[in-house]
Parts: sequence; C-alpha cells; structure tokens
Amino acid sequence: MRRAIATVCLSGLLTDKLPAIAAAGFDAVEIFENDLLQCSLKPAAVRQMCADLGLAIDLFQPFRDFDAASPAQLQRNLDRAERKFDLMQTLGTDLLLVCSNVQPDAPSDPAQLAEQFALLAERAGRRGLRLAHEALAWGTHVKLARQAWDVVRRVDHPALGMALDSFHTLVLKDDPASFAAIPGDKIFFVQLADAPWVPADVLTHSRHHRCFPGQGEMDVTGFMAQVLACGYTGPLSLEVFNDEFRAAPAHANAVDAMRSLRWLEEQIARRADAAPTPTAPRAANEVAARAAAWHLELLPPAPALDGWSFVEFAADRPTADRLATWLGALGFEAVGRHRSKDVALWALGETRIVINLEPESHARRHFERHGVSVCALALASTEAADSLARARALGCQWVPAQAAADELPLPAVQTPDASLLYFCEAPAAGQRPAFEHDFLIDAEALARATRPAQGAQVDHLVRALPGGQLEPWLLFERAVLGLTPRRNTVLNDPYGVSRSREIESDDGRIRTSLVVSERHPTAVTRTVSRYNGAGVQQIAIAVPDVLSLARSLRRAGAPLLPVTENYHDDLDARFGLDPAFSSALREAGVLYERDAQGGEYLHVYSAPFDDRFEIEFVERRGGYALYGSTNAPMRLAALGEWRRAQAAAAQDGAAG
Amino acid sequence: MRRAIATVCLSGLLTDKLPAIAAAGFDAVEIFENDLLQCSLKPAAVRQMCADLGLAIDLFQPFRDFDAASPAQLQRNLDRAERKFDLMQTLGTDLLLVCSNVQPDAPSDPAQLAEQFALLAERAGRRGLRLAHEALAWGTHVKLARQAWDVVRRVDHPALGMALDSFHTLVLKDDPASFAAIPGDKIFFVQLADAPWVPADVLTHSRHHRCFPGQGEMDVTGFMAQVLACGYTGPLSLEVFNDEFRAAPAHANAVDAMRSLRWLEEQIARRADAAPTPTAPRAANEVAARAAAWHLELLPPAPALDGWSFVEFAADRPTADRLATWLGALGFEAVGRHRSKDVALWALGETRIVINLEPESHARRHFERHGVSVCALALASTEAADSLARARALGCQWVPAQAAADELPLPAVQTPDASLLYFCEAPAAGQRPAFEHDFLIDAEALARATRPAQGAQVDHLVRALPGGQLEPWLLFERAVLGLTPRRNTVLNDPYGVSRSREIESDDGRIRTSLVVSERHPTAVTRTVSRYNGAGVQQIAIAVPDVLSLARSLRRAGAPLLPVTENYHDDLDARFGLDPAFSSALREAGVLYERDAQGGEYLHVYSAPFDDRFEIEFVERRGGYALYGSTNAPMRLAALGEWRRAQAAAAQDGAAG
Repeated sequence: MRRAIATVCLSGLLTDKLPAIAAAGFDAVEIFENDLLQCSLKPAAVRQMCADLGLAIDLFQPFRDFDAASPAQLQRNLDRAERKFDLMQTLGTDLLLVCSNVQPDAPSDPAQLAEQFALLAERAGRRGLRLAHEALAWGTHVKLARQAWDVVRRVDHPALGMALDSFHTLVLKDDPASFAAIPGDKIFFVQLADAPWVPADVLTHSRHHRCFPGQGEMDVTGFMAQVLACGYTGPLSLEVFNDEFRAAPAHANAVDAMRSLRWLEEQIARRADAAPTPTAPRAANEVAARAAAWHLELLPPAPALDGWSFVEFAADRPTADRLATWLGALGFEAVGRHRSKDVALWALGETRIVINLEPESHARRHFERHGVSVCALALASTEAADSLARARALGCQWVPAQAAADELPLPAVQTPDASLLYFCEAPAAGQRPAFEHDFLIDAEALARATRPAQGAQVDHLVRALPGGQLEPWLLFERAVLGLTPRRNTVLNDPYGVSRSREIESDDGRIRTSLVVSERHPTAVTRTVSRYNGAGVQQIAIAVPDVLSLARSLRRAGAPLLPVTENYHDDLDARFGLDPAFSSALREAGVLYERDAQGGEYLHVYSAPFDDRFEIEFVERRGGYALYGSTNAPMRLAALGEWRRAQAAAAQDGAAG
Repeated sequence: MRRAIATVCLSGLLTDKLPAIAAAGFDAVEIFENDLLQCSLKPAAVRQMCADLGLAIDLFQPFRDFDAASPAQLQRNLDRAERKFDLMQTLGTDLLLVCSNVQPDAPSDPAQLAEQFALLAERAGRRGLRLAHEALAWGTHVKLARQAWDVVRRVDHPALGMALDSFHTLVLKDDPASFAAIPGDKIFFVQLADAPWVPADVLTHSRHHRCFPGQGEMDVTGFMAQVLACGYTGPLSLEVFNDEFRAAPAHANAVDAMRSLRWLEEQIARRADAAPTPTAPRAANEVAARAAAWHLELLPPAPALDGWSFVEFAADRPTADRLATWLGALGFEAVGRHRSKDVALWALGETRIVINLEPESHARRHFERHGVSVCALALASTEAADSLARARALGCQWVPAQAAADELPLPAVQTPDASLLYFCEAPAAGQRPAFEHDFLIDAEALARATRPAQGAQVDHLVRALPGGQLEPWLLFERAVLGLTPRRNTVLNDPYGVSRSREIESDDGRIRTSLVVSERHPTAVTRTVSRYNGAGVQQIAIAVPDVLSLARSLRRAGAPLLPVTENYHDDLDARFGLDPAFSSALREAGVLYERDAQGGEYLHVYSAPFDDRFEIEFVERRGGYALYGSTNAPMRLAALGEWRRAQAAAAQDGAAG
C-alpha cells in the first residue's frame, strides 16, 4: 500500500520535515496547514521541494468549522474555502480534509449539514478537487464516523467522501464494524494513530498523547482490517500529535514511523479475520494470500526467543578491575578468556557476563561515549537468521561481525540507543551455547560458578531511558523482537517519580522493563545522565534459593543494599508472616511481595556500580509474574541512604 | 492556629524532611508510613529527632482497607492495627488516619461498617489512642465526607472522629456545606491541598497533581471556612502528592508550604461568610474580629499596584554595548546616567529600562551567575512599605538598599529565582517617579524617547521557568503581590511544547505570564538554559500605534522577527480583512488576533537578544484582554527560521 505521513508528526520546520520523511521511504505527505503558514517558502516552492524529494502531497488539512449557524457565516466559510482551494491547486493536491465542527453553535440537523456540504462539494468538484469529511471525537454534534457518513451519504456527490481516523474511532470505543455500510470508494483517506489509555479528556488525549501504531494500547490493527474489508485501497497515513515527538529528532522519528507502518501491515495480514477482536493468527499461506489481496507487505516472521545468551559490558582496564571485584563479591566467577580478543567471560549458574576490553571494537567506542556500561545484549533465537532479517526489514542498522576465521561470527543490529543486539542460535538441549567455543574455559571455575546457584539465569532487564525514548523502545521491542507490552507502573523515588513499562514474550521467557523519569533527580535520571543516554540499569537474575544466596553474600560482606527493620516490621503486620520465614527474610535482608493469587517474589538488590547499574537476585514462587514494584520505594530509598553513606565515608577518607 | 505538614509533601529521606519542616516554622508533622519504613532510624529515634527539632507528631498515616468482607479478614486487620498502635505509642502520637476502603470486596452496608469500626475504636480507646476516619474520593463505597460521617456517627465512640481533606471534597465537587452536621470536636484532623483542574481521573489527579493552597484552582478557602464554622480548632495540615514536589529541594518547598498556609489563613478571615462561594471581602475590623475568633494570623494587606516602574538588566561592559545597540535599533533612547553608580537609564514612551554595570552590586552577582539578563523588576505600589512588609511576612528574604545618603533607598525582596523585586512608591499624578531623581536626565534624549510612542509602557512580562518552578512562582505572585491566576495555554513550538499560565492584577494593570517547557528543546528551554534558571523572556510594551512603529522600525532595519506571507494569506481567508488594513499589517509585518467579542490584538516581536529575551510591541483594541497566544506557533517558528539564518550567516562569515 501507499504510505504517507502528516507533517505535524515530526519536529522542526517544514523544510526539515520533508527531507526526513523522504529519507524514511514514504510515498506521500499530508501537509498540515500550520506547517505551511510557518514556512517562508511560498506554496509553489513547497510543491517543488516535495517533487524533488519524490513525495506526493496526498492531502491538505485541516479545514475546520465549515458548517454554519447563519447564512452569513456560511457564505464567509465558503469564501474561506475558495481561498484554500486556490492554495491546494498551487500545492498540487486535490484532497482537503474537512473535520466536523467544534463550535458551540454548530448546526446539528443532518439534513441542514448535508445541504451545506453539498454547496462545498459542488464548488470543490467544479475545480476537480475532493473533500474528505472527518468526525472529530470532540465535535459538537458529529463525533462518530457513522454521523459523518450520514452527511456524506445524504449529499451523495462524487467530490465528497470520508476520512477515517483510527484515533477518533478508538478513543470513543466506537466499533469499526460500523464502517461496514461505507463503500470503499467513498473512503477518500485513512489516518492512523495509536495512543496509550491515559486518564485524560479526549482532546488532551488527542493533542498530546497520540503515538504511532504499536506504541500505544489501541487496536489499530482491527480498525484497519475493517477499513480494508470495505474495499479501501488508498494510502495508509500516520497522523500523530505528541509532545515528545514534537521534540524528537525528525529523522529518527520518521524511521520509527515507517517501522510502525510495516509492523501494522503485518499485523493486519496475520489477523485471522477482519473483525476487530484478536483471534489466533492464520496459517502462513492464508496470511500471504490476504497480504497479496490487500497489497500489504509482509515481514520475515519473529522467531521464538529462548532467553538471554549473555550481557556484554564495555570497560577500560581500571574499571574492568573494579567491575571484576564487584562481580566477584556478588558470587560471579571468571570462567574464561576469549581466544583472540581481550574479552573475559563471567558466570553465575547459567548467567553469562562478558567484559569487553578489546581496543578496536564497538565496545570500546561505546565505552568512550558512555563509560562502563552494558554495550550489547545477546538473545538466543530459535532462528537467528530470521531474527536478523526481520530487524533489518524494520529499518534497524545491521552491524557486521568482527570475528577471526575460526570464530563464531555474531552479526548484530543497532538498538534505539546505539547499543548492539546480537542474535545467537539457541543451543540444542544439553549443548553449551555456540559463542562459548570462542572462549578458553576454566572448568574448575565454571564448576564453582555453577554450584551456588544451579540454573540461575537472567530473569529480566531494566533499561533506564531518557524522557521521550519510551515510544521508540516500545516499538523496537514489540515490532523487531515480537514482545508484548504489559503493565504501566508508577515508581515513587524519594527524589521524584519514575514510570515503568513492562514488555515480555508471551511465554515469559524474555522480560524487560523500560523506565523513564522526567528531568527529576531520581535514580533513573542519575543512571541516564551517567550513561549519556539509555542504558541497562538492572540485571535481574533468577536463582533457585535467594534466601540462602543473600544470606551467604551478606555474611561475606557483599555490596547488597540494606533493608530497614521498619520495613520488616511492616511486612509482619501486613502479611502475618510465619515467624521462621519472617526471620529468614530479616536475616538475609530480602524484600518480599505477594500477589493476589498468593504467588510470591523474594528479591534483593546489589548496591549500584558507579551509580549506573545493579544486579537483582530474584526468586519467583507459585507463578508470580510481576516485578516486585510495590517494593520499589524501599529500594529507591535504600539507594539514597547507601549513596549518603558512601559520600560520608569519602569525606571521612578525605578528612583522615 | 497550629500549623502542620505531612512528610510526604517533601522530597528526600525522613531525616532530610524533618529539619526542613522545622526550619520553615511548622509546629507539627504527620508521619507518612512509607517515610518511616524507608528510614534507617527506629521509631523511638524518629520521636527523639522530632522532639529535638521542636516538632510534634500530630498524626500517623495511613491505615488502609480496615473494614473487611469476612470475619477472618477483619481479625487480620485488627491484628495489623494493634501492631500499628504499638508503633504509634513508640512514636509518641495518639492519632491514626484510617481511610476508606478501596478494595473491590469492601463492605458497603453502613451498619456493618459501624460495627467493625466500633471494634477498632474500642481497641484504640483502650490504649488512649484516637482514629480519624477519612473518605478517599476513590473509595469503593465511602467516597464523600458525609458517608464517612455516617459511620462515625453510628459508632459514636470518643476514640473515633473525622479527618476532612480539602482535596477529596473539592475534587468530587462535593459541597463543604454538608459538614454543617458534624460537631467541631468530632473533626479530629484537617488536611489541606489544592490542585489545578487537570483532565485526569481522581486517583491520578490526587497522586500527581496536588499542590499547596493558592497554587491550584480549587476553593480551599471556602472549604476551610466551613470547617472552622463547625467549631474545629485543631491543626491546619498540608498533605500534597506532587511529582514536582517530590523532586524539589525540601527546604525551599517547606518555605512555600508555610507561605501557602499564611496566605490561606488571610483568605479565610477575609471571606465575607463561611459559605463556600466567594463574595466581597469584609471590612477590616470585621476581618480582624473573625481572625481573632478563629485564631487566624493576618498578613499586612496587599496594596494596589500601579504598573512596572522599571526593568533592570545586569550586564558587563561588552554586553551592555551590544544591548545598547539592540535597544537603540528597537527605538529606545539612552536618557540618563545614575548620579553615583555605573547605571544607565533607557526609555521608550513611559517605559524605563535600567542597565546596571556597577561592580559591587546585586546586578553584578546576578550577571556572574546568569549572564546578561533581567536581574530586577520594580513595581509601583500605592503603599510600598506595606508591600515590603507583606512580602517579608510571607517568608521572602529582604535585601537592604545600597544607596548614597542623598539617593532614594530602594529596598527589595528576593524572588523565587533570586532576582530582585523593588517596591517603588507610585508617583502622584503628573509627577516623575522618585527613582528618576537619582539619574542625570538628558532632556533632549527624553523628548526623543517620548515622541514616537507617547505613553508606551510595559504591557506584560513573560517569565521562562524551569520545570517544577511554576507552583512556587504562582504562589509568590498570588500571595505576595495579590495577583490572580487566569488561563492556562498550551504553546506549540516547532521543537516541543510549552505551557503558559497568565496571572494578573484584577484591574489588568499588572499582567504576567509564566511559561514552562519540560526538557524539550523549545524556545522556553533555550532561555532557561541560557539563563541558568528562571528569567524574564519577554518584555511586552503597549504602544499607541504598533503599525506605524513597526513600519518605521522595519524600514530602519530593526531586529524584528519576520512574518511569513503564508500567514497573512491565511489571516485574509480567516477574517476577511479589509484590504487596506490587511496590507498595512503585511507592510508592517504585524501579527493579528481577534477575540470572540471583536477585541483586537496587534503585535510584533523583536528577534531575541543572545537567545535570552525579546521585546514585544503590542496594541490592544476594543477591550482585548488576552495575550495573542494563537500566534505563538508563528512566533516560535519565526524564531526557528531566524536562528537558522543567523547560523548560516555565521558560517558564511567563518568561511569568507
């Protein structure tokens, strides 16, 4: 299908937006009037610029509040329209979006509306122009697509058709099945936006919180499947109003927009039927047939993921030495060295951490920009080549492997924060992962690493994001990796507020949490500012017995965050814990949460390394599937106490 | 009255919060349970810390979800309460806040609730403790104060009374008149919070957007007048949940909290009656009598303000030379020099600008921290001494005058961004302002400055604030200066979104606008980061004929922002302007707005000086009382174009 985007989606001036849109591969634009008014280029020059960039202008918008309470006002509005028709002809576009009236005195009688729209359609038609009528969700009387269709149907003029917009339909929970009565050739234009369900009125929701399909929580797929079922064959056009996007770099945002459309097309084709409720995906041949019928372009499928193969840190020598001490104190063992590179392998149970000191490498470049940090993650994919192909089709930059002839080439893609994501082949049952063959393994150390936490592996990862990066990351993990977004959680930090969004694979094998803090001095902000961008803030490792691990680590003086006695007193009061269990929690300094079904989460946090990242040891009992977020305020306050104690110790050191 | 604050209002750890609360002059605190759980001090040590700081602990909170669907759950909740009673006795507080149940299975029958609360009251009473029952606005069944009172009334136990909270009452638009049935001695506690009317659900509204009374839009005064009319004599306690406050420095925030309470007490006393609708203020003796009866402390009154006397810039010599060139190009004239200081006086019509280069001065210190910027504003007050006394009573720092013996001493107070605010005596009719006597005036220059813009004076000021500074500034201008907050406006910048809040004197003589941008690269953020804090971003000057002034300035090549032809084409289409007027607007490059009553606003902006501040020339016609904000996107885009042209010119210069 033809792909378009409204200029209002991107930041900057029109002359910045158009090149970014062209570079991302769009066929066409909707010109938003304000962008034109602000532009020092005259309309003819804008037309030329679009032509030079290979962009068609598919629509000009919006024309507001056309229908009128009085004949005099109607005449003024018709005159106003003629001026805009002149402009459209200069721009070289034939389609004008006319949205429903939001004025308090707007006419409500469909017959009267039809009479007025007939006059407008007649004038447009005389010039070879067309009008797409759109119901705004906050229109005074015309709020729903079926109300706008009632007007268009009555007028029955070839120059008047419908504009359908997923946001306006879905935000009012209107049923797209109501489109069934509209013939496809009377749908002149389709605009697409998603949005999270935020507690806001419809207008605020629309003006500030829209996002690209897949970044929000609305069923844009179901909406679009219904529109296509009507026989619509025009462009898919994105129209998003979002405070973050207005501030984001236009080029990256345009790439995200295209990723969203590509993902959406796949979702539509895979939808088992056109009804707007999700059902099981169709068989591959059916999907392909449907995609062909509707001119949808399919992506390589998203293979199942089998966990995290390794977490790779970038460091220089002195930091790597400190990091080694820290990992050692937390129970990790150095188990191997790379055959040809300055790279060390660490382990605890089945968890693998790589510390990369190689001088000419992505890790080194990452270190120079971000300091000690997670520079790469490796995912075990059941079809690594497919995972890679899908990522590339979705606009991810491919990073070729740097491997010697006898080593495993691990190609990667770049993530939204320019760290790397490797796709490793998931090992067959009982096999070691292939990447370990590039390491000289110390068998005794490996045994020591395996023993205290048999089977321990990464449970989840928490990524701290700068404000405005949540939507790009959500789309990346959802579209590229095939993960599913879950809960939003507010985290109260003693120094501000952060928000987290969980996103997981359907089998729970991959869990990640994206946390964002706005400009406040929270722990998340501290991590972001230390990292110079997004970064992995927490590596949570599932262990078989967190109480015994935490107890032995605390005895050995490991850098674990303290837990207050007042917290444990309250746990007893809240849950009436068994005294033996309660004292085990106290002794080990382990946090506790219980879900509504009685599932339990026991967890303990390391102190942060350089205010950057920390390790969480977790134990899930009885099907607990959350992230222990009720304990977040405790962790964040403990972090504050710990930081203060560090500062006091440093002052004492300086004084002594 | 006794003044208290909940520890949750402030950022940081409990051990940070308590000293800040004590320093701001509070009598007591409410200890919020999470603060205690996070604290490494045991409860007895917290009690001691409060005692050492002279703070009583008036309340411990919250005890949630007490009433129970099953006898077993009820027993668990009673056991849980006993543990909290132990804790309260260790803390040395006798009052526990028990809020209404928010669980889906909460009991709804008032008789059953009364039965359960009677058990709890009995147990509390046995220990000499008391319970304050609060209706949460999002309680499952008990949402309104009258529903909570129904339970308390049925129980009729001396240990059970009410907690009333202004937020919970006002957010549901419940009428405080419903308290009339509650005897004052059954109101055990009163919590106060204000909030803006944001489009959010009640829980989100409460958890993230509460603010101190006077910072929001709710009628906290009417609420409190009604509570006092019941005979309540307990503490006034602030309880605010706010994302910004969680991130703000605790000390400054505690000072704001006290300012809010002092202002609120005055408002209550001035309210003509206890009904929760505003009416004309009472005569002074009645106000005093009422304040005495209710133990409210009055402030010195806020005198009427008669406009801005002058705007003072801090600069060093080279910047002052550039600033002089810029002002000169915009039509200002240098009209005088200070008798003893290195200070210049500039004028346009009646507008006065002071450029202060004095080496040992507040201006110099301000310059060193913020660069060229507005370091002080002078307000003409009808009773300057009263204005000053009121500001000091509200916790503003007083800055003594630095004046020679024969010069006018101009004492000042420090504003929330550490710039100065002078209060000048408003001159009698036909008199020159007293501060001008300290300057040697060049009469010819003064005549030149007066002629082109007879009577021109400051129309309004726009202050660019860092995120989180809106509430402190609103309270400062409202409480200290007696201004009234008006509209909120969203400003779309090509590179993000800003929000503005207008605050004015009732006669429109003083108008200011506070603009905030979150972390986006907007013009507001650029100003804030250049200034290293808050700063005056726009000085709007009302002139008698903006068209002729702009035309002559543009002819002379003055640094005015361009206006696009596309904008003027659209003005014609929108308003059907008279062709002669339209071409006058085009020729002068003047922006135009018309309000619903036909009032008109003609305005033009200078280019910014060093990305910091700009001058707007405005003309109000036909009673127009707004700020031209529909043209903000045009201004902001023009700023983007202008900045790009500057950068291109600089590159050409560098290349040539």
